[in-house]
Amino acid sequence: MPADGPDETTPFRTREQREAERVQKREAVLGAAVRAFNARGFHAASLDEVATSLHISKPTIYHYLGNKEAVLLECVTRGLEMLQAAADAAGDIPGSGLDRLCQFLRRYAEINMGDFGRCVIRTADEMLSAEGARRFRELKGQIDQSMRSLIEAAIADGSMKPVDVRIAAFTFAGALNWPARWYDPQGPMAPDAIARAMVDLLICGVSRNAG
Amino acid sequence: MPADGPDETTPFRTREQREAERVQKREAVLGAAVRAFNARGFHAASLDEVATSLHISKPTIYHYLGNKEAVLLECVTRGLEMLQAAADAAGDIPGSGLDRLCQFLRRYAEINMGDFGRCVIRTADEMLSAEGARRFRELKGQIDQSMRSLIEAAIADGSMKPVDVRIAAFTFAGALNWPARWYDPQGPMAPDAIARAMVDLLICGVSRNAG
Repeated sequence: MPADGPDETTPFRTREQREAERVQKREAVLGAAVRAFNARGFHAASLDEVATSLHISKPTIYHYLGNKEAVLLECVTRGLEMLQAAADAAGDIPGSGLDRLCQFLRRYAEINMGDFGRCVIRTADEMLSAEGARRFRELKGQIDQSMRSLIEAAIADGSMKPVDVRIAAFTFAGALNWPARWYDPQGPMAPDAIARAMVDLLICGVSRNAG
Repeated sequence: MPADGPDETTPFRTREQREAERVQKREAVLGAAVRAFNARGFHAASLDEVATSLHISKPTIYHYLGNKEAVLLECVTRGLEMLQAAADAAGDIPGSGLDRLCQFLRRYAEINMGDFGRCVIRTADEMLSAEGARRFRELKGQIDQSMRSLIEAAIADGSMKPVDVRIAAFTFAGALNWPARWYDPQGPMAPDAIARAMVDLLICGVSRNAG
């Protein structure tokens, strides 16, 4: 019988099954770790508690993800990849530049209310090695650049006022990073409703004389 | 001669001079500490380096401010008192409710670009004792409440659109806390110009159709 073909009659798993199980286990470790970091802070959280919560040993965590700093770096990389994917997806939708910017900003806010986005916001350079911090800043810089490009395009097609691009990017990012600190899953509003309300406010302003 | 009167002929300082010197020394310690915390993060910064920078011993810091956590709590309390004073002062100026809110938001942003404001934003509950964290949250809650009151008054007098007060407060606070992370004193814009540009954007929005 072929070593990597599916076969109901053998207790041995196929190569695909083993790979799928490895991915699934790695995801479980990553999910338990990010929740521990978010709940107690990186310094206070330990890989021992993460291991205990999954009924595994700490070396098993090392096997899947590496040491504590490597686990954190993987968590923030995942969050930043989600944000980058949201920017790329928004760039492809039809409508005005402002429509594409709004779409991105709403997803950006929603991701920041999720486990990996929260971890990105709560992670300070000091928690990482010099090389890890360099990588972290590089990925954050790419998201910032994507946001600025969407703002520039919205100004260029006339759907957005000609504001200072850098200030606008910082204002949007700050407002929409903040839910990572205050969002409460037990609260009255769901992430998509919060994201929509915040982006409406940022785009339309609050002055009675604004649009 | 009176023990606490000024007298040029004695090398002994008056009570007022001693008190003024004590305050000045305490401020110097607090200033050196907040800059060390901001530069390297609370965990990485040490009272030893703060003491060395002032040519004093660590026990001298303990004398003026207490242990490392007490020093941090004093730094964030100072920042939060500045924000509270800004809210109180804004409530007294003439004009519409939106004028008062804008005045507060601009000062809020400026304070967050200063040493003590930056320290407030960079401090996480985990860095403090349970009692310290409780006090920190209580003071932050008062600022939040002041901001909400200014928003409510601006909506009540019709100068601001009837937005969700909680969402608006979080959006403003998030946007204007963020400069604590990105503001660079060597950068092209001064704090008051940054504050003005950000608050204009928040109030007026960015849509071409907004005011």
